[in-house]
Amino acid sequence: MKKFVNDPAQFVPEFMHGIALANPDLLSYTPEFQMIVRKSGPDNAKVSVVQGSGSGHEPAHVMAVGPGMLTGACQGAVFAAPAVDSCYETIKACASDAGVLVLVNNYQGDRMAWDMATEMAVAEGINARQFWINDDVAVKDSLYTVGRRGVAGNFFVMKCCGAAADAGQSLDEVEAIAKKVNDNVRTMGVALTSCIPPAKGTPIFDIGDDEMEVGVGIHGEPGRRREKIKSADEITAELFEAVAQDIPFNSGDRVAIMVNGLGGTPITELYVIYAKAHELAEKAGYQVVRNYVGEYCTSLEMAGASLTILRLDAELEKLLDAPAETAARIF
Amino acid sequence: MKKFVNDPAQFVPEFMHGIALANPDLLSYTPEFQMIVRKSGPDNAKVSVVQGSGSGHEPAHVMAVGPGMLTGACQGAVFAAPAVDSCYETIKACASDAGVLVLVNNYQGDRMAWDMATEMAVAEGINARQFWINDDVAVKDSLYTVGRRGVAGNFFVMKCCGAAADAGQSLDEVEAIAKKVNDNVRTMGVALTSCIPPAKGTPIFDIGDDEMEVGVGIHGEPGRRREKIKSADEITAELFEAVAQDIPFNSGDRVAIMVNGLGGTPITELYVIYAKAHELAEKAGYQVVRNYVGEYCTSLEMAGASLTILRLDAELEKLLDAPAETAARIF
Repeated sequence: MKKFVNDPAQFVPEFMHGIALANPDLLSYTPEFQMIVRKSGPDNAKVSVVQGSGSGHEPAHVMAVGPGMLTGACQGAVFAAPAVDSCYETIKACASDAGVLVLVNNYQGDRMAWDMATEMAVAEGINARQFWINDDVAVKDSLYTVGRRGVAGNFFVMKCCGAAADAGQSLDEVEAIAKKVNDNVRTMGVALTSCIPPAKGTPIFDIGDDEMEVGVGIHGEPGRRREKIKSADEITAELFEAVAQDIPFNSGDRVAIMVNGLGGTPITELYVIYAKAHELAEKAGYQVVRNYVGEYCTSLEMAGASLTILRLDAELEKLLDAPAETAARIF
Repeated sequence: MKKFVNDPAQFVPEFMHGIALANPDLLSYTPEFQMIVRKSGPDNAKVSVVQGSGSGHEPAHVMAVGPGMLTGACQGAVFAAPAVDSCYETIKACASDAGVLVLVNNYQGDRMAWDMATEMAVAEGINARQFWINDDVAVKDSLYTVGRRGVAGNFFVMKCCGAAADAGQSLDEVEAIAKKVNDNVRTMGVALTSCIPPAKGTPIFDIGDDEMEVGVGIHGEPGRRREKIKSADEITAELFEAVAQDIPFNSGDRVAIMVNGLGGTPITELYVIYAKAHELAEKAGYQVVRNYVGEYCTSLEMAGASLTILRLDAELEKLLDAPAETAARIF
């Protein structure tokens, strides 16, 4: 296993410690609950937005904590849901008179943990409610889900809800934003290689040297089909068609396009995909008014990418453009 | 070869096209010279800062073009110096009455191309001069260099020179900033895997499943030694010692620490390295006042990382904090 790791069992607390050390004025880290919250804590006049999932998807979710994004987040072991205790403590640490919106990617493990944690928090008088994200069009049900999976489109939900909450919108309003984004965002991914979770030490799935997994999940779950690898343009066209036909998007729509790297794919390859996706979007009559090319929701060092399209309106564009400050900054 | 690529011969122009498409208000792309310049062009009242190298190191260099950073950049094929024509046209496109500072990472190919291009530009009356960056402490001479290589510390030179130039400093002053940064920045890297240039289709070096290359160059050049892979903390300590002892840095120094990913290493592993480097820096009495963890200078999808330490003063801190807008943005 070729990784920068000490004790694999300590991998998650060690990298979270590094994130906190690198952002002392922005973040507070509680090792006991693998939880990171804004240094400034929750603001009682504003809705708090929290999320949490298994580790291995960074910058989601602890690197998305900060003004304009999440109020707090917690993580489990690599690809394992956070502990109920961690979820409960995160809601408590972010409790606000204005309420707490808990964003949950739709996986059984995450939902079970956040369900119990939210119930415990509500029983204590905290005004908390959940919203489930399920933007992945690849499969109807997956290994770890009933229903669609939540993948990279999750970024747009966090960004818009974080901006709305920090602008002082109510819990009902922030929840309505989450619903609007989730209703208008669709994603599909493709993997060229597996990744190796440090504690496992071996790949999570086998794939041939000339194969790709179309519609892969962010934990290596099977997608729609295993195919021989194709050209970047052919792969992008497959992803684009699956995503575009799902809602469907329509000619004239204002859209954001995201090309998300799964961890092991260089940014240059993502821009090759972006160029084709942009061309296909324009050909379909969409107005491409925002774009996001980089790593937003990863699977450790998996080589692969996902394509996300979000239908915009003036409200969402304004929320996307609002300032945010998180650990996930570059240049 | 598992990559998102169409025709390997078109890989560089295709990804540059994608970068330009994604940043229409920020950048202008000239395919003929694989050149990207600020949309606003040069400002005659301000020094222009340009750089260019082989491709495969993104976000260096074309993704570093924009206000507060480079005025323009050009790239060659993957790991091959840009053509003299490209360098010459880039200097010309960025020509300014205040002068042009050409930043060159110290490789024979890059130096030869920029030498000739600068000479041609000067002969035409453009006030251009070069500055060579050589922050890599690993080896005295390397495959492609006489003298030390320029690697990830290059970011700090671009950032500080870009900020100084945009603040209206003279060519002499911006050159003095480049010298100050280069004199105070040191880097060493380690590779766990090779990468595969698209046009080559095979790894650029062989390395065992349990080996690492300590002091690797960003084109896969040999470093100081081939070793059995160690723990993240042991690797970080090796890098730290090599870098810290070189200038040397001293107790009480205010420093920036950069942990740079070489392309295939997830950000979480970079934070494991950061945590140890931060601890060692504090133990040595340095004040760690800035940090940069992410991908700044890559080798395609190589798994690996480099550690950079920069000694700061009030002037450099101000320049690092100045705003910049480039294609390399996330969140």
